[in-house]
Amino acid sequence: MAKFMDVHSGFVGVTGSQLREAHDRDLAIEGEEGVHFERAWLDPESGKVFCLATGPSKEAVMRIHDRAGHPTPEVYEVSVEVA
Amino acid sequence: MAKFMDVHSGFVGVTGSQLREAHDRDLAIEGEEGVHFERAWLDPESGKVFCLATGPSKEAVMRIHDRAGHPTPEVYEVSVEVA
Repeated sequence: MAKFMDVHSGFVGVTGSQLREAHDRDLAIEGEEGVHFERAWLDPESGKVFCLATGPSKEAVMRIHDRAGHPTPEVYEVSVEVA
Repeated sequence: MAKFMDVHSGFVGVTGSQLREAHDRDLAIEGEEGVHFERAWLDPESGKVFCLATGPSKEAVMRIHDRAGHPTPEVYEVSVEVA
């Protein structure tokens, strides 16, 4: 399993419940690709959303986001993590 | 306390221990601005680094990164989070 960070743009003014709804659409189907979206963070001012996911490939992450209605080409495999 | 995600570019080919070292330079001084860098993720292929931090302001986060030698203008206040 690899870890991925993806970035969405254009979510200006989106509320917490709208983000919850969008995230739930990912969670509902993610298992079909062996993906899990762990967490999502939104800056409603700039419209940026960051999603942290695990899964078998970048393409699998992209397919779930596509099908959930919020495609993004910006998916990074983050193979190194420090805390 | 607010939460921030920042993005760095140009870390192509950086190793885990180099990221550790860079992150430790933040940790060593972050308290002076009331900032805490919780986690950092690196994609060594694209050279992108994502840092999740808490702190009093975007400017405080930027000042720590500046002083630690890895400035970035891309700091987002992520006021909404879902899991």
